[in-house]
Amino acid sequence: MRRWNGWGDDAVAYSLTDAARAFLRQRIGAGTAPRDATREQALRAVGPSRIRAGALFEDDPALRLDRSRGQSFPDWVAMKSGRMGPVADAVARPRTHDEAATALAEARRIGAIVVPYGGGTSVVGHLGVPRGERPVVDISLERMDRLLAFDATTLTATFGAGTPGPRIEAQLAPHGCLLGHFPQSYEYATLGGWVVTRSSGQQSYRYGRIEQLFHAGRVATPRGEWRVGGVPASSAGPDLREALLGSEGRLGLLTEVTARVRPLPAHESFHGVFFPSWQAGVDAVRALVQQDAPLSMLRLANEVETQTQLALVQGHETALKWLRRYLGLRGIGADGCLLLAGITGSARECALQKRMLLAATREHRGVHVGPALGAGWAGSRFRGPYLRNSLWEAGYAVDTLETCVMWPQATAVMRAVEQAVRAVFAADGERVHAFTHLSHVYRQGCSVYSTFVFRASGDPDAELARWRRFKRAASDAILAHGGTISHQHGVGVDHAPWLPAEKGALGMDLIRAMAREFDPQAMMNPGKLFADA
Amino acid sequence: MRRWNGWGDDAVAYSLTDAARAFLRQRIGAGTAPRDATREQALRAVGPSRIRAGALFEDDPALRLDRSRGQSFPDWVAMKSGRMGPVADAVARPRTHDEAATALAEARRIGAIVVPYGGGTSVVGHLGVPRGERPVVDISLERMDRLLAFDATTLTATFGAGTPGPRIEAQLAPHGCLLGHFPQSYEYATLGGWVVTRSSGQQSYRYGRIEQLFHAGRVATPRGEWRVGGVPASSAGPDLREALLGSEGRLGLLTEVTARVRPLPAHESFHGVFFPSWQAGVDAVRALVQQDAPLSMLRLANEVETQTQLALVQGHETALKWLRRYLGLRGIGADGCLLLAGITGSARECALQKRMLLAATREHRGVHVGPALGAGWAGSRFRGPYLRNSLWEAGYAVDTLETCVMWPQATAVMRAVEQAVRAVFAADGERVHAFTHLSHVYRQGCSVYSTFVFRASGDPDAELARWRRFKRAASDAILAHGGTISHQHGVGVDHAPWLPAEKGALGMDLIRAMAREFDPQAMMNPGKLFADA
Repeated sequence: MRRWNGWGDDAVAYSLTDAARAFLRQRIGAGTAPRDATREQALRAVGPSRIRAGALFEDDPALRLDRSRGQSFPDWVAMKSGRMGPVADAVARPRTHDEAATALAEARRIGAIVVPYGGGTSVVGHLGVPRGERPVVDISLERMDRLLAFDATTLTATFGAGTPGPRIEAQLAPHGCLLGHFPQSYEYATLGGWVVTRSSGQQSYRYGRIEQLFHAGRVATPRGEWRVGGVPASSAGPDLREALLGSEGRLGLLTEVTARVRPLPAHESFHGVFFPSWQAGVDAVRALVQQDAPLSMLRLANEVETQTQLALVQGHETALKWLRRYLGLRGIGADGCLLLAGITGSARECALQKRMLLAATREHRGVHVGPALGAGWAGSRFRGPYLRNSLWEAGYAVDTLETCVMWPQATAVMRAVEQAVRAVFAADGERVHAFTHLSHVYRQGCSVYSTFVFRASGDPDAELARWRRFKRAASDAILAHGGTISHQHGVGVDHAPWLPAEKGALGMDLIRAMAREFDPQAMMNPGKLFADA
Repeated sequence: MRRWNGWGDDAVAYSLTDAARAFLRQRIGAGTAPRDATREQALRAVGPSRIRAGALFEDDPALRLDRSRGQSFPDWVAMKSGRMGPVADAVARPRTHDEAATALAEARRIGAIVVPYGGGTSVVGHLGVPRGERPVVDISLERMDRLLAFDATTLTATFGAGTPGPRIEAQLAPHGCLLGHFPQSYEYATLGGWVVTRSSGQQSYRYGRIEQLFHAGRVATPRGEWRVGGVPASSAGPDLREALLGSEGRLGLLTEVTARVRPLPAHESFHGVFFPSWQAGVDAVRALVQQDAPLSMLRLANEVETQTQLALVQGHETALKWLRRYLGLRGIGADGCLLLAGITGSARECALQKRMLLAATREHRGVHVGPALGAGWAGSRFRGPYLRNSLWEAGYAVDTLETCVMWPQATAVMRAVEQAVRAVFAADGERVHAFTHLSHVYRQGCSVYSTFVFRASGDPDAELARWRRFKRAASDAILAHGGTISHQHGVGVDHAPWLPAEKGALGMDLIRAMAREFDPQAMMNPGKLFADA
């Protein structure tokens, strides 16, 4: 069963090893086991619904509770403390586009606000229920999780927008195809959610970001049905798919998505390469992407993430000792940075990819260690979020921050973000374990993804206040380096204050004008993406 | 000097051979040499300017005349007949963004309409001057043709938006880079024009459409300066570059473009492959693109275009005779269809591309004829438009129509468009020489580009009336096959009537809402992209 106040299936545990506990204790001190609210306590705080339940709307308090939060840091504090804040008045769970449109129309008729819900995996506050006079209907796409049409000639597949990652691939595999979109939230995140938040997957370097995979969509808007896309390419005016991508529910409810799929690759492996320094690794991945090396992933960990990965995730003590000894002999010390490179495709394509990877490795003094480390990573690539549960139980909280910058800012923004967060904790006399990787690379620059582990305070108010302080400091640092406020998580409420600095006043006017055109009553997910007047 | 009433430099002639004349005479009858208006006649029809000339605005009648038309069929009829229609009241030729913004602000102050002008190569009526009460200022970007900044670390280059193709590549080559955008209009078309019309180049299969090459832009809007883009990728809300791409001047005047460039490739060749039938060729290119074969171009001519290319363009009689004999021995008859495949990159990349091309050739019963035909094509790839001059002088007019459809519609839309146009001419007792190629391929489908050669009527009114009839019939056929009204030329005024069928009523509202937000006085290129109320 899905955890109501944490990540994932409660049958899955990703325990911290003793070595991992010691690693953290040494770096940030011992954690204190939390005293979380019980589900019963949280349920007692759910108020009465302002909407009459019926065929369209359900008002079961447990259902309303479970659809009113995502996985952002404030969401976690709310769920763990039992201070859930506002909860949706009703939940609609349509099975078809028409049912979704009917629910939307009814919400409009009664003056309600609609919060669209996909897989509940947002980490930036897309799912929170706004406080206010208007009742709130959560429209969950969870029952729209089927492959509706598959076309082998055009390699396109239409899914219900609520189809989560594993169900997408399971329904494509019999056709010999895959979508290839693998964000860490893959287990629960949905195709529709990826589109409206402009998601990127671990192997988007090969398969493309969701922008490239999104062929066409069907949207229930307050003004009626809107169909968008459907041709391979066009010069006929602005591409309106791009208005829907990243619209975060403000234009309507995306109900069906036609995706561009591919034949399943024949071979895949993930090779590990250690570079003697961060800069050597950055130079190598930049060289690879600027030569258009057709790999499927380039993911470079900084020195601390490399050490952390080896300590927390891999955990095979003897093998690691030998690996360290080997790397030492080859000149890779404690500053060594691990690159995981995906090699995917036909035998010939893989041979070319490997050849280009090894050439860049040599050129930048890296040490190729083969596919074993990468196989370990691939085997647990979607289990990372479960670690957040185990860390929390051990008294540690986790948050992540990410951006995308031009190459010259990559190292500077990493240092600035890590330092900004450390400074906030230092002022409280606390340490933070911060580490970073480049998760996506482009010819012009890369994404920069930082993780912060720190001792939970035990006091939800203090926890949130501190989070606000470090979020602000880090986000300001991102914008100061010309970065986007999000490369892959979206805006939600958490990033909305920084969007105007990125888009400019005219850009924000354009976004608001689009939302206003389809949603004159401002009923669609207000407060997300941009603040409402 | 640039031809005032035709294509290109008047020092360049691309004469019709006797064989080509015979070829056309046999198919559509003998042409009658036209009696075109002289430049003096056209100039006499230029009325007085309604705008006072000065530091910002020039009112020289010749300049106004030369900036008031593009290369659409109605533009040609106007220029050849001397019935130019409305001419801009003034022309501004700013040198910098600030000068452009000043000209725009002054146009706004005096209640004028602005028509942005790049290279004058539009074939769908982007440049026409609207008739009406408000004076019209043409803002030409022709003096903004410089490389303003180059960054080797990020492979980005900022240009004045009026920089034409050859000047782009000439300014990048010393940096060891290229943009790689090669539409047939390359000689004059500009970077800014490509962005605002969503252009695609002959090798976009490798280099990407202009959407992929457009990194950032600077725009003078009626509400002030707008900067858009600038990060490699982002999930922070809708991508506003995509609102500018295809906006055809309706959002403002694009003055500076930062483009994503690449290292110059080491090797390039274009290989010819003859397939025994159209369907075999279509199957082969679909297989190649769906395997992600990393070629730089896949351009498949139908049987008539293949014959026409060999007759009109190549023209080496003896060599052709031997080629036909060889093809005959290999089972390629009169239905043979020529694929030109671009092979571009490092020696290793080229080897992989060639291997994949030859495998698809074998699989689909094609005959590889090496790079000689392709070298001929490459040598004259931008000279095609000059043929329009020679044909006109021989009494023949030319028009082209293009779309992009999903694979199952490729052949059907080709036949329907060719047939629709033939039927219109047949009703007049005239024949039309129609031929088609697939110019761009995608995993989901392809573009379909048809050319029509027919005898000019000699009467501009009749010519335009017939053009309207066949344009309507062909455009209806395109939409009926789920095609876009334009894959690479844009909308302008010629395609505007079909855009609502493609975008839907809500989609059109979204486009209008965006334009209204930046241009509340509807001064920016009215009538283009969508009809104004």
